[in-house]
Order: sequence, then C-alpha cells, then structure tokens
Amino acid sequence: MHAYWNGEILPLDAVRVSPLDRGFVFGDGVYEVIRLYGGRLFYADRHWARLARSLQALSIAPAPDPAALEDALRQLIAKDGVEDGIAYVQVTRGAAPRTHAFPAPPVAPSVLAYVQPIPRPASIDRGGRAVLYPDLRWQRVDIKSVNLLGNVLAKQHAVEAGADEAILHRDGLITEGSSSNVFIVKKGIAFTHPATNAILNGITRQLVLELMGELGLPVVERPFSIEALWEADEVFITSTINEVTPIVAVDGIPIAGGKIGPWTAAVRAAFSDLVERVRIGAGA
Amino acid sequence: MHAYWNGEILPLDAVRVSPLDRGFVFGDGVYEVIRLYGGRLFYADRHWARLARSLQALSIAPAPDPAALEDALRQLIAKDGVEDGIAYVQVTRGAAPRTHAFPAPPVAPSVLAYVQPIPRPASIDRGGRAVLYPDLRWQRVDIKSVNLLGNVLAKQHAVEAGADEAILHRDGLITEGSSSNVFIVKKGIAFTHPATNAILNGITRQLVLELMGELGLPVVERPFSIEALWEADEVFITSTINEVTPIVAVDGIPIAGGKIGPWTAAVRAAFSDLVERVRIGAGA
Repeated sequence: MHAYWNGEILPLDAVRVSPLDRGFVFGDGVYEVIRLYGGRLFYADRHWARLARSLQALSIAPAPDPAALEDALRQLIAKDGVEDGIAYVQVTRGAAPRTHAFPAPPVAPSVLAYVQPIPRPASIDRGGRAVLYPDLRWQRVDIKSVNLLGNVLAKQHAVEAGADEAILHRDGLITEGSSSNVFIVKKGIAFTHPATNAILNGITRQLVLELMGELGLPVVERPFSIEALWEADEVFITSTINEVTPIVAVDGIPIAGGKIGPWTAAVRAAFSDLVERVRIGAGA
Repeated sequence: MHAYWNGEILPLDAVRVSPLDRGFVFGDGVYEVIRLYGGRLFYADRHWARLARSLQALSIAPAPDPAALEDALRQLIAKDGVEDGIAYVQVTRGAAPRTHAFPAPPVAPSVLAYVQPIPRPASIDRGGRAVLYPDLRWQRVDIKSVNLLGNVLAKQHAVEAGADEAILHRDGLITEGSSSNVFIVKKGIAFTHPATNAILNGITRQLVLELMGELGLPVVERPFSIEALWEADEVFITSTINEVTPIVAVDGIPIAGGKIGPWTAAVRAAFSDLVERVRIGAGA
C-alpha cells in the first residue's frame, strides 16, 4: 500500500507525520473520501470543489492542485491495483510550533493521499440498522474537517449496539448520520436536512437529490423531527462508501415493517446506474 | 529539543507519527499542558488526574503511567535545560486502518511528551485584551481532546483583532476563553461558569477557586451573561500558561475603566506565591 505525501509517492508506512503537524495537535485539517469503481474516480470534481471550500473556510492555503492530486491518485490506483475502493485525501495546516492561532507566516500544508480496496457493502442490498445518538458536534460540520470525535463516539455507539450507523439528533431534529446523510419518505415526499452548517453536504446526497428530480420524487430540504423518522414510510442514508442504504430498523425497532420501500429501491437503482456507468468508463 | 515518544527519548524532529494515527485522522486523542517553573512541574498530580479522566471519557486505554511520564519529563527538562516553560503531553488512540469506530481489538495508544521554554507573559502584569467570539465547539469540551478547531478559529480571530484572547459565548452566556477560563467580579462576588460539559475545568481555575476561599472572596459557579461581563467590576482569565491575567478591554472597550481591579490583583498575587513556592522547590 502506497501513499502520496507532500509531492512524493512512497510506501504508506514510510510516511511520517511530524508530531507538530496541526492535524495531529488540533485536528486542524480537512479531508475527502472519493469512491473508486473499477479503478476510476467517482465524481471527483465535486470532491475537489468541496475540498477547496473546506480549505477556504479554514484559511488553509495554498490548496493542492486537483489535477496533481488526480494524477497522484491514478498512480496509486495502478501501483496498488485497486478496483472498487476509496481514495482518502487529507490536507492539514502543516507542522509548526504549537500555538492555537495560525502559524505566522503560514507554513506549507501537509497533503496525504492513499487508495484502498473497499467492496460494496452488503447493507446496501439487505438494508442497514441504525441507532439514535445525540449530535454533540461543533457548529461547523459543513466544513469536512478531521475534528471528528463526535462522529467517532456516535459510530462506536452504533457498533456496540450491533448497528451499522448512528443517526444524530439535535434539539429534537435529525441532522444526519455519523458518516452519512439521512432521508425519509412520507406520503410520496422525501425530506432531508438542508445543507446548513449543521450537516456535511455529502456528494452522494447531492447526486441523490438530482436523481429524485429525474425519478419524479418531490424532495423538501427541511429538518424533520425524531418522531417524523419513526413515522416515515421509508428511511435511507447516503454516503460515499455506503451509496444509498435502506434503513430497516432504528434502535432495534423496524421502520415501515422492516421492508425496503419502493422509493428507496428506485433511488438505489438509479444510483447504481451512475456507479455502473463510471465503472465501465462511461460516466463522471 | 527532545521528546518522549512511546517509551523512548529522542530528538523531537526524529518523532514520526503514522498517517493512520487516529490523532491525525480524527483528532482522537487528549492532551495536557503542565507549567514548569525553575525546571519543576507545577501541580502535575492534578494534570495526571485530568488526563486519566479525559482518557476514560473516550475509552482510550491503557492510560500511560504518570510516574513514567514524570520520569520522562524530568529527563527532558534536564536534557533541554528548560527552567520556566511547559510540558506538553498528548495521548491518542493509536494508529489503525481508518474507520470511525474504535479499532477492535484496540491498538496501543500513542504517547508524546516534550518540554519547551515559555517565559511568564507580560500580559499578566499589564493586563490583556479580549474579544468576544461565538462558542462553536462540541458539547464535550470538558474532555481535553485535540478536537480544537473551534478554539483555533477563536484564537485566530483574537490575534487578527490585536487581542490576547477570545472569550466565548453560547446562547448569550459566557462559557470560557479559547484557552482559558473566565472570571468576573461584581460587588465583591466572583462568578465563573460551572465545571459542566460546556467548559474545560482548568487546573489554574481550580487553584484560583481555592485561593479565593483563602482570600475571603465569595465565588459563585454559575453561568453569566455577555451583559454581566460588560458590567463587571473586574474580569480576569486563568490558564496554565497565562496564570491569572487581568482583562482590561473587551472588543476594544475598556472594562471597569481599563484598570486592574483589587480582587484580580489579590488573586494574581496569591497565585504568584504558589508559583514562587514551586520554583524554589517548596511547593506542589
């Protein structure tokens, strides 16, 4: 397994991060996870746009050049022979003596990338199980930063409960999953939290919103309550790794009889078409 | 400059953190900053107790042995010839392939420590300037984790405004500073935010609460409003590095005429006595 690290390709275990790297000391960095299908990057442009937005929000500069990153990723994909998997890209504010404020003058950001095989999770077809967990995170989760302890604790809670994902709530409203966005369908209308500072606007979420338009499923971007989740006709989550995953139970209680609903199945099928187009080299 | 890293003493720039260290990837780690005076650790026992609490809150185990850490710090203090300064100690959940949930089985935590000289800041005597900033942080800042982006952005705002510290507010109430606790004095009574999940219970804060008892200054641990801050007779902040620092202006507007109040001076003097006792080897 290899990595791109500050301009070089080397074995991942030869990458050595400074103990003064602000990613390590403050979580002062951002990242992207890009899906790979058949060794091809899935909608990379959208990830680069979001990476640029995250870096700008934290005033981390200069941003790495997407073309250079894609070139590095293609080398890594070839070197490590990855077909279906992910590309992980992390950019931090760099290494500098520890002080909360940004280093002045700025130091060079640290740039890490690697690819790894990850097969399509079975939960996409069999349906996933979720648990509820309080959204403890900070108020800028729209920035895809590595300040992820709130997500980590939520996911760990899910794993300990034998579930696949934790669905987060704040002030009685569902925000998103610990590493996914959450949709419900009720009486033929889909709802999901709007892309405010309270959620991370997933690329899969964005693609799914577009697919819903094509499928003729009206969608309202509005926060919905925990009660609305319980009473939904269908619940599904979206994420880069888990695509469109039906949620068939929450806190051990079946949602809509524990069956995968028709709109969920339709969205999942439409998304699979995007995946297959990229896999054969005909898509984004 | 040297460091302790997972059982070894080596040059700081020879410490190489794995890119899979969860400190780097998730901010999944905790830390302490212990003051050094005359090459001696200032109230280290309280820092070890808090470190143990932070580690337990995140289920990071095993916790490093405080005696071993102190032994390492004494070696570093001698090696690097530090008199007045700080010891920085960070413990992360260790390096493991990236997945939000904890590694199963657990991996060995990463343990880093180093010392560095930091003189007593002049703002302790001349008074410091603060700015207000929204408290964007997560809901478990009682855990001294390295998920510090909210603190970083606040401090950067302060620096850009020419101030020493950012005072954070949430829902109209003052929580704490970006790297300090905040006290006000009004009509002979001191107020500070209680040690809930909304603040980091500083060791200096704890010592100051005890000193106030000895000085006969009544103190109420209760959240106070932004308005109460503006109308305070005295404002000061406490932190490991900045001890007891009077705040003489907030957002450029003088507090209580821009003078250092009598209770602030008394608390600062009592705290300096603790410092001097440790410096000559007679204290904690």
